[in-house]
Amino acid sequence: MTRSRPTDNRQILLAHRPKGVPKPEHFTLAETPLPIPRDGEILVRNHHLSVDPAQRGWANDEGNYSDPVPLGTPMRALAVGEVVESRAADFAPGDFVYGWFGWQDYCAATPAAVLRRVVETHLPLTASLGVLGINGLTAHLALHTLGRPRPGDTVLVSTAAGAVGSLVGQLANIAGCRAVGVTGSAAKVETAKARYGYATAIDYRTSTDIGADLAAACPDGIDVFFDNTGGTIGDAARALMNVGGRIVQCGTASIATWEPPPSGPRAERHVLTKRLSWSGFVIFDHRAEFAATAEKLAALLDSGHIVFDEDITHGLERAPEVLEGLYRGDNHGKAIVSLV
Amino acid sequence: MTRSRPTDNRQILLAHRPKGVPKPEHFTLAETPLPIPRDGEILVRNHHLSVDPAQRGWANDEGNYSDPVPLGTPMRALAVGEVVESRAADFAPGDFVYGWFGWQDYCAATPAAVLRRVVETHLPLTASLGVLGINGLTAHLALHTLGRPRPGDTVLVSTAAGAVGSLVGQLANIAGCRAVGVTGSAAKVETAKARYGYATAIDYRTSTDIGADLAAACPDGIDVFFDNTGGTIGDAARALMNVGGRIVQCGTASIATWEPPPSGPRAERHVLTKRLSWSGFVIFDHRAEFAATAEKLAALLDSGHIVFDEDITHGLERAPEVLEGLYRGDNHGKAIVSLV
Repeated sequence: MTRSRPTDNRQILLAHRPKGVPKPEHFTLAETPLPIPRDGEILVRNHHLSVDPAQRGWANDEGNYSDPVPLGTPMRALAVGEVVESRAADFAPGDFVYGWFGWQDYCAATPAAVLRRVVETHLPLTASLGVLGINGLTAHLALHTLGRPRPGDTVLVSTAAGAVGSLVGQLANIAGCRAVGVTGSAAKVETAKARYGYATAIDYRTSTDIGADLAAACPDGIDVFFDNTGGTIGDAARALMNVGGRIVQCGTASIATWEPPPSGPRAERHVLTKRLSWSGFVIFDHRAEFAATAEKLAALLDSGHIVFDEDITHGLERAPEVLEGLYRGDNHGKAIVSLV
Repeated sequence: MTRSRPTDNRQILLAHRPKGVPKPEHFTLAETPLPIPRDGEILVRNHHLSVDPAQRGWANDEGNYSDPVPLGTPMRALAVGEVVESRAADFAPGDFVYGWFGWQDYCAATPAAVLRRVVETHLPLTASLGVLGINGLTAHLALHTLGRPRPGDTVLVSTAAGAVGSLVGQLANIAGCRAVGVTGSAAKVETAKARYGYATAIDYRTSTDIGADLAAACPDGIDVFFDNTGGTIGDAARALMNVGGRIVQCGTASIATWEPPPSGPRAERHVLTKRLSWSGFVIFDHRAEFAATAEKLAALLDSGHIVFDEDITHGLERAPEVLEGLYRGDNHGKAIVSLV
């Protein structure tokens, strides 16, 4: 089968540097020529774009684990797409790949931009972005590498109904733990309990005393705190940690800006007296483990041990509003922008 | 040789519950009958008492790794002394032991109170309290277990001239690291550099910008932060941590009280983006390693690779004032109260 080569690309460019949450006014839609892959590159046609809380940090300019997205360039994003042209060894048209292809229709990329080849052809391609993408990989690797759950442990997860938290609850259950969730609506509380393996969950938006609610939900204290939010939920959780507890800092979604850093109760005494281990997790440190971990997650999907949900919006131009909505908690499941 | 059995004991009792630093008015001196060891116990005559920053936490009632000292009982303290009577297997009069014998002349104790037998008869007995006691054991075990220093690392130590910090600097040097200290006077800065292996040291009391001074002292960032103080020094250090850095929380000496917990800049973002590992260390978790670690430290002393300093005050009745002075930084070297 031959394809007629399109001539145009569309890109969502970062036009203005946000301070805090990136909003639609920080982006522009540009029509640009189709990129031409150079020697060693592939041309990827994006099918689905990933929308992730981490994109706030990538768009801002306040110290992060990667350089900020340069103004006037396509918004940094993960995506899954099809190789439509290849000038790189080991890639052929028709291959499906997951990687750093940005908010655009087409991307000319080197193999270094590919995080993983999609091999699960029996699963929907969107699964590559979430449950088999950085969300599932983060849930599995951060929980097991840093959280080190033991049977009987209480595992507290902030953003229990999110793309990562929905899987952490299920994986904690599989590890023999009791999962307790924090999430942002009554509907998400119900979903967390009914679908994501949480023994109980708290709606932090309606809680009048998060410390008391967490204490009631965790009568045996907290052994593993999988924290995607930081802020006051984290403060309350640290006060309930058991001796030898592990805190996995996987995100700081509740804090809109870190310049200047907001204040909170000091944590030194909790870390010391409870011999906590508080560690940061960035999924991109673990690329070598992606393929094997995705295989484990795919097996859990195939055997029906885990479920996942996706919240799909259609149209490249809507990516900025989906991102903005993520910080309001609008999405139910993995936020995806579909281009096909 | 027979000894005439004394009939009296003197004890420093905790009479009032302090909030923050224990002061002389919180203690009383009591004359009590000599304790009579029961079956399975030993009678220890204390030679030297240990005065430690951790005693603040033991005397206070605000959540710690051990229950607070009950009012009206001898102040909890480590001491080194001689077994003068034994009703326990494996102990004989003339044995020297280091353990939980409290601020008193004599203690009837079970073998569980003994942390270590003193086997280094060629060293002064006081060494058992500091360099071979919890200070040296903490320096060695916390640095190597949690700090995991690698050659070339920058190791920052708060309380660089203290009983623990003076050894951490030297041990970091032995591990091939560059040690940078924070301490509380010009004289201590000089001692840290001249005696304790610090490449440079900062006097936090005269620093007008601890962040800038730390940045200048650590041009390659900080890989290991051995923190005995917490507070603003820790805040500045966290901002300078390198990716993958380790923070060892060994004390919180700069914070007088934790009820209510004081506020400081939130740490979540540093932990996340730099993938820090921030862990608490309490030496009493590591009893099984005491004998082997003391042996390593004694070998380093014998070979001249490490030095230590002691600040000895004579007289049981002066223990409370020595403890109070510790939080002002009065002592130069390990604070000891000698009874012999």
